[in-house]
Amino acid sequence: MTKKYQIVGVGNALVDVLAHCEDSFLADMGIDKGVMQLIDTERAAELYSKMGPAQEVSGGSGANTIAGIAALGGRTGFMAKVRDDQLGRIFAHDIQAQGTDFVTRQAPSDHPNETGRCLILVTPEGERSMNTYLGVSCELSADDLDKNMLADTDWVYLEGYLFDSPANQEAFISAIDATKSAGGKVALTLSDPFCVDRHRDAFHALVRTYVDLLFCNEHEIQALYQTDTLEAAMDIAAGEVETVACTASEKGAYILNGGTKLHALATATTVVDATGAGDLFAAGFMHGLTTGRDLMTCGTMGCVAAAEAISHMGARPETDLKELFTQNNLS
Amino acid sequence: MTKKYQIVGVGNALVDVLAHCEDSFLADMGIDKGVMQLIDTERAAELYSKMGPAQEVSGGSGANTIAGIAALGGRTGFMAKVRDDQLGRIFAHDIQAQGTDFVTRQAPSDHPNETGRCLILVTPEGERSMNTYLGVSCELSADDLDKNMLADTDWVYLEGYLFDSPANQEAFISAIDATKSAGGKVALTLSDPFCVDRHRDAFHALVRTYVDLLFCNEHEIQALYQTDTLEAAMDIAAGEVETVACTASEKGAYILNGGTKLHALATATTVVDATGAGDLFAAGFMHGLTTGRDLMTCGTMGCVAAAEAISHMGARPETDLKELFTQNNLS
Repeated sequence: MTKKYQIVGVGNALVDVLAHCEDSFLADMGIDKGVMQLIDTERAAELYSKMGPAQEVSGGSGANTIAGIAALGGRTGFMAKVRDDQLGRIFAHDIQAQGTDFVTRQAPSDHPNETGRCLILVTPEGERSMNTYLGVSCELSADDLDKNMLADTDWVYLEGYLFDSPANQEAFISAIDATKSAGGKVALTLSDPFCVDRHRDAFHALVRTYVDLLFCNEHEIQALYQTDTLEAAMDIAAGEVETVACTASEKGAYILNGGTKLHALATATTVVDATGAGDLFAAGFMHGLTTGRDLMTCGTMGCVAAAEAISHMGARPETDLKELFTQNNLS
Repeated sequence: MTKKYQIVGVGNALVDVLAHCEDSFLADMGIDKGVMQLIDTERAAELYSKMGPAQEVSGGSGANTIAGIAALGGRTGFMAKVRDDQLGRIFAHDIQAQGTDFVTRQAPSDHPNETGRCLILVTPEGERSMNTYLGVSCELSADDLDKNMLADTDWVYLEGYLFDSPANQEAFISAIDATKSAGGKVALTLSDPFCVDRHRDAFHALVRTYVDLLFCNEHEIQALYQTDTLEAAMDIAAGEVETVACTASEKGAYILNGGTKLHALATATTVVDATGAGDLFAAGFMHGLTTGRDLMTCGTMGCVAAAEAISHMGARPETDLKELFTQNNLS
């Protein structure tokens, strides 16, 4: 029987706050370039007061992926925690308006933690340095999940960033149980090499035990398996997971499935803001997978969607992804 | 003695909520294309629930102008009313981060009216249709003004949209008094032909009595003087106001001063989103004026700044305006 959803995501609910800056600002503020750092309320206030004029766009790694799949016509749901505040309403509006069912309970407006946000500083060459104030997002617990939705999806898509909160890790296991026991499959993105470093054993146990499809980049998979080369890490992963899709910036993506290794080339574009490249790669790839394409086509779809994401500020698609796929003979 | 500020703006504090849509959506929702409509809380909720994924950028016509002048290095201040809420903090951050002093009292977080916003629908050719929920912004009263700031500026810049609220009209007169009695001058933008229609007599009295520099477009000035041609309207205006700067879309701008009429040509660009074209024209023009340029150069500066604004989503400058002026031999 066809399930109601093709992909249901479990991730953070964040509003991205994007501003341009020079490299010297990162240095002055002690921000490591190109990575994601978790920040607390005080640091968020300090950084925001010093950064330039910004624009706000709904974000969150897993939510970006789900929004991308929805933009391509996929049947999607998403679970994450927001507060009943203006940023929470913006997040909920944007993901629902893209065609995704978003049903998670809101925390009340007087809850001490606000809706989460990610202060993103984009340096002139388009690299983004992310400073995440998780807020209420890290309180997503197993009780917040809609088990019926998870039982009615082909895939659950889990955002690795959630490993930074113990409550979230419990939610992961609960989401996996609800999906797998109804015959669904599990996709996980490793999200960030430092997040992998912080929770290596837990990540590894999850990957080995439950994950059918692993998304990562070169740095993340090497952090997981602590190898010196990408090849060595991918060889280990291939023995543990059915399919591995590993992005490698301008080199494109490598896909491993059983004994097969494929290489999808990156799509040429001008980098305006690298935010969301990996998220949209996963969107394109999963769209291919859920519409029955071969893995090489899935990889190419991932690369085309990623190229769109990095050609403008923000991580949600701004052009018609369906039309873009048609232009690339991918429809 | 040099005053602390070159230009202090009095206007609305709005956060723009920008989404792409097709023409059919405007028709379905009963939205007149290309104009600004005031909407109430219910209509704002209905429209937001139906419009697509959006991005948020600080807006407000007068605030856009002031932010543009600040980006060009001008010494600026701004007064407008926000509530102590997330959107209010976004508005305040963005204008302060651009280098403008923003000092107006906030309404408390439990005030019934939220920080104002403008739901902007951008159709494929780049035209914007604006639906403004003023919220607490229309409560700006004479008591909210910082009279010391107004006494310490060369120019006060008034946003015509504020005429839609009686409290705002009183604030205008008070701002003019505070500025003129300290030797400053008054610039006014007519903002919108329908706003002019709604308050023609009050606008006309203000223009005739107090205004030294009038910004408008072809439609607004004809609405003010109820003439059949632009020429006729400009002739009347020239008898009432020292300087008139009238934009005319792709034809550029006409500038009248005493018996002199100048024509500044529009700068070629691709229209992505027309939001803020007039606002940034005023920014470029006033920057020229306050740095002692001739009126033809002021007009060209206006056209170059306007072209930047319409080349991307949102009305605040995204590229370095100073650098852009240098490239156009305007520095």
